[in-house]
Amino acid sequence: MIERLCVIGVGLIGGSFALALKQAGLVREVVGVDVDASNLSNALHLGVIDTLSPTIEEGAGCADLIFVAVPVGASKNVFRHLVSGWRSDAVYTDAGSTKGSVLNALQAVFGSIPPNFVPGHPIAGAETSGAGAARVGLFEHRKVILTPVAETDPAAIARMEAIWTKLGAKVIQMSAGHHDEVLAATSHLPHVLAFVLTDLLGRSDQGRELFSYGAGGLRDFTRIASSDPSMWRDITLANRDHLVPLIESYRDALGAAAALMRSGDSEGLTHLFTDARAHRQRFIDQLEN
Amino acid sequence: MIERLCVIGVGLIGGSFALALKQAGLVREVVGVDVDASNLSNALHLGVIDTLSPTIEEGAGCADLIFVAVPVGASKNVFRHLVSGWRSDAVYTDAGSTKGSVLNALQAVFGSIPPNFVPGHPIAGAETSGAGAARVGLFEHRKVILTPVAETDPAAIARMEAIWTKLGAKVIQMSAGHHDEVLAATSHLPHVLAFVLTDLLGRSDQGRELFSYGAGGLRDFTRIASSDPSMWRDITLANRDHLVPLIESYRDALGAAAALMRSGDSEGLTHLFTDARAHRQRFIDQLEN
Repeated sequence: MIERLCVIGVGLIGGSFALALKQAGLVREVVGVDVDASNLSNALHLGVIDTLSPTIEEGAGCADLIFVAVPVGASKNVFRHLVSGWRSDAVYTDAGSTKGSVLNALQAVFGSIPPNFVPGHPIAGAETSGAGAARVGLFEHRKVILTPVAETDPAAIARMEAIWTKLGAKVIQMSAGHHDEVLAATSHLPHVLAFVLTDLLGRSDQGRELFSYGAGGLRDFTRIASSDPSMWRDITLANRDHLVPLIESYRDALGAAAALMRSGDSEGLTHLFTDARAHRQRFIDQLEN
Repeated sequence: MIERLCVIGVGLIGGSFALALKQAGLVREVVGVDVDASNLSNALHLGVIDTLSPTIEEGAGCADLIFVAVPVGASKNVFRHLVSGWRSDAVYTDAGSTKGSVLNALQAVFGSIPPNFVPGHPIAGAETSGAGAARVGLFEHRKVILTPVAETDPAAIARMEAIWTKLGAKVIQMSAGHHDEVLAATSHLPHVLAFVLTDLLGRSDQGRELFSYGAGGLRDFTRIASSDPSMWRDITLANRDHLVPLIESYRDALGAAAALMRSGDSEGLTHLFTDARAHRQRFIDQLEN
């Protein structure tokens, strides 16, 4: 049982974590902290949190589990507010979408990675944000990646693994670097592609007309371009070492596809599209099995 | 009432057109022609068509409505089989995804655009294909674009408009060139982006692992990469004059986004993602109103 959970950043992820723990009867009290006062009072009003705290110091003070769920660019600042009241008997964790940057921020603020901080990332995004978007089942059947370091306390890891498992998630451990590489390909690149396409079409003189013909594929395809801009600014900057080379590979691959069209290479295009469809079929089979 | 509908290419579009007309009681008999004999017998078995014909000549012979629903690269060959038995008292139409290429094929085969051919395109794709994918409600609340030329018989246009409207579609007229420009942006570009991404991830050594983390955005984002490869080879070749320059603009925009990341331009990225989100919100509002 968690006596007091402090959620720092009561958005989609932080709020859903609180709701799920409450629903499972795993927490006695949830205190919320958020830079956005109206979001925080909305979280209280919706019952996502039980009490609100004006400062991180006060909110985290008597908590035995501290969950940091802020855009990754804000992690360092949150850690600065946590350092003075750091409790060695509590477990700290986070939900940052990039893990290398979170470890760097911890290192910068604490001089080393605190053993009772378990870096984590639930792969359960949505294009919605804020406490109002929180839902109790968000983590069911989703993956949660933990990226502990050599210094991380095995008991703290085990505690987080048990909590996430009880919320219906599947917990996986990997290094922060591997996490950032995998997520650059499977999440960060697709988001950038969708943002850039939506912006390109939206900026065009014919934007309004174009969108009126987009009821089919375009709507799904651009869904992730409705995601929170600050969160994605932080992610793309924090993971640029993995992301930028991938974007360049993608631009090359796209250029190669355009070259096939330009030269009328019917066979080459058939290969490309057939391979892509086969890869996707494997992807779907994999998700369903 | 249509006495005899001949569907040439009994796939998702051709089959759904037949099913919808039957359901609406607007057709007495449907004859199907298809290069794929097993697809054709499946269409018969499923009741999508009433009879099958081994040749276009025979199938179209006694029909008063001829619906050509083949990948656009096959249009010219279909027209070559239609030319000898052309009936001036029937209406011919098609569902080709690119209209300039269809007009060119007609011009090449007939020496001019036959007045009783109404070029059309129902915007109702899916990533499924074949007669088994046909469904009766596919065109409901969807747009159908007709791209008649100056020579097209107004009575033939009116007939196709009435038919599509009865199937629940909204009919719009525009030039073939404008159609191809609009579809390059809203459909062809997104499909190419999805095919290229799926191929890039699938080809990577980590493909299997990458896809296992793609339950969120990636699954929706790559859905359209499961579309029929031959159809998309034909579309991308037929519309390359509009599509290739758009791909180049997209590559530039993506390069600009990568440059913002590389230089750590936090403000620039916020602008990009905020604008994209606002464009998408307008898109959604537009589709819903």
